[in-house]
Amino acid sequence: MKVAILGTGSWATGLARVLNDNGHQVMLYGINPDEIDDINIRHCNYKYFKDVQLEETIVATSSLEMTIKDAHYILITIPTQFVRETLQKIKPLLKEKVTIINAAKGFDMNTNMRMSDTIRSVLTEDEINPVVSLIGPSHAEEVVERILTAVCSVSLDETTAKDVQKLFSNHYFRVYTSNDEIGAEYGAAYKNVIAVASGVIAGLGYGDNTRAALITRGLHEMSLYGMIKGAKQETYFGLTGIGDLVVTCSSVHSRNFQAGYEIGQSHRALDFMTHNTKTCEGVRTCKVIHDDVMSHDYGIETPIVDAVYEVLYKNASPQEVVASLMNRDLKSEQL
Amino acid sequence: MKVAILGTGSWATGLARVLNDNGHQVMLYGINPDEIDDINIRHCNYKYFKDVQLEETIVATSSLEMTIKDAHYILITIPTQFVRETLQKIKPLLKEKVTIINAAKGFDMNTNMRMSDTIRSVLTEDEINPVVSLIGPSHAEEVVERILTAVCSVSLDETTAKDVQKLFSNHYFRVYTSNDEIGAEYGAAYKNVIAVASGVIAGLGYGDNTRAALITRGLHEMSLYGMIKGAKQETYFGLTGIGDLVVTCSSVHSRNFQAGYEIGQSHRALDFMTHNTKTCEGVRTCKVIHDDVMSHDYGIETPIVDAVYEVLYKNASPQEVVASLMNRDLKSEQL
Repeated sequence: MKVAILGTGSWATGLARVLNDNGHQVMLYGINPDEIDDINIRHCNYKYFKDVQLEETIVATSSLEMTIKDAHYILITIPTQFVRETLQKIKPLLKEKVTIINAAKGFDMNTNMRMSDTIRSVLTEDEINPVVSLIGPSHAEEVVERILTAVCSVSLDETTAKDVQKLFSNHYFRVYTSNDEIGAEYGAAYKNVIAVASGVIAGLGYGDNTRAALITRGLHEMSLYGMIKGAKQETYFGLTGIGDLVVTCSSVHSRNFQAGYEIGQSHRALDFMTHNTKTCEGVRTCKVIHDDVMSHDYGIETPIVDAVYEVLYKNASPQEVVASLMNRDLKSEQL
Repeated sequence: MKVAILGTGSWATGLARVLNDNGHQVMLYGINPDEIDDINIRHCNYKYFKDVQLEETIVATSSLEMTIKDAHYILITIPTQFVRETLQKIKPLLKEKVTIINAAKGFDMNTNMRMSDTIRSVLTEDEINPVVSLIGPSHAEEVVERILTAVCSVSLDETTAKDVQKLFSNHYFRVYTSNDEIGAEYGAAYKNVIAVASGVIAGLGYGDNTRAALITRGLHEMSLYGMIKGAKQETYFGLTGIGDLVVTCSSVHSRNFQAGYEIGQSHRALDFMTHNTKTCEGVRTCKVIHDDVMSHDYGIETPIVDAVYEVLYKNASPQEVVASLMNRDLKSEQL
């Protein structure tokens, strides 16, 4: 099988290795000539994994046409802000029906749609099979080292979910299936905001106890929001919920965590917000969810998203925001 | 208020500082003369916190009678295996009705009862107020440093739960209330077994992705078992469920994690099981749960407990057990 991978970043490279290990043909599409040369000539993605020697069968190109040609699957690993325009470029190139596998986590730049909806709004049922999202606790840095990882193949269509499960599964990359697309996609987006908060509290010098409390309340908050959108609660008990949340909130590998950490240490977000150039999906996701909750009468509270919003967009003091978040009235846990 | 604290270990010391900060009188009961002298003379619990200078108002004694005298509350922080016999010694010393606060996590040595049931089986309603358990993500090492921590005051009786909530709460120690005693106590015990497993996989060289998958499946497994016993599922979404599980599985502070780590690194449990002298509740809890599930027809699977059991009690190879645990048939996540 040929898999076209959109992106040459860390996740693109990690998943390319999984697919290559499984005997599939992979081709990565990138826009940075240095990264492409790196992969094709030095067989290394130096920017992300300088010590990892990639297989020679993992190749990259700047030609979208060549990437897409004869592909049975298209795997999306680019930042959410570029997904719609890239799909629009792909649309006229499609000759046969393909399966789109989404691994981007967040909302469309203009419409705030989640990713599967964004894909379906550009490509029709005649052009693509049911959409699949690949979501779960998976740092690319570990996948590329072939460290045991478990994720979910999420699709409204069970057959396609199983097909993608089979495509990726091997002895170190375990894939379960799930049909709760709404729950998984809102969870995957929301957890990036909690990860920013987790970075902030680490940057401020709090410990594991504080983080565990944040993760617990964060899971509660993200499940409430997801259920408003139609998610199943039990999804938040699974790999795409608590699993993904734990790994993103607890690791320096996470860019969202790193962003929060930097902000916590510098005591204000203004510097970060002005100068950051790296993709940090949690920053924009925070605003999308905050604005959504503010403009609707959902009947839920989102104190962590609100706190991160104050820090990122109102330049509030992280120290004061955390103190006020943690000093809410003592009450029964489920209230 | 006077609080009698049974134990001079790390958790006894951490909670003594919280209570002392809140203006209560605390007295610790211990059996090791060196530890008692340390606390009374050097104002330090050197064995656990060599760099922490304790307040002079935190005192310890080897006299159970003096500890209990005039106490309004008795806080249990000793290993579960000593709880019953210590309560039997306390019984004739009680003059006024007291509130027992349990912070031990596991099962009674002889009856396999959970802790609140054990307490009620020794002390009657005439002798004690409703039992309270203090459970949640809380490394003593951080509490003693006054790092922000959130836990649950769990009791079948709301008034007593709130009373204990008020006793402990301050700006760095946040206490929520809960009434799911069964869920919290089985969760607190079960999570120690998952923590052993988490240590084993870390000792074997696996990463954050693997741990996140283990935590996710572990939460699922412990909630199924808890519900068999009468727990509410939502408890496993809270501080005493996922919160406690995350902190115990992710930290070198946890003795259960450390035990697993040592076993993972040495590739067999025999050495550890023969020579270990530290309290490691997960080891015995694993056997209690395993034997309970084996001898009943609960209709649930407990693959993580079974795997830890094989490693601890059958001297199976951790590497092989983990491989077989992770190589179960690929399936839908909720099955």
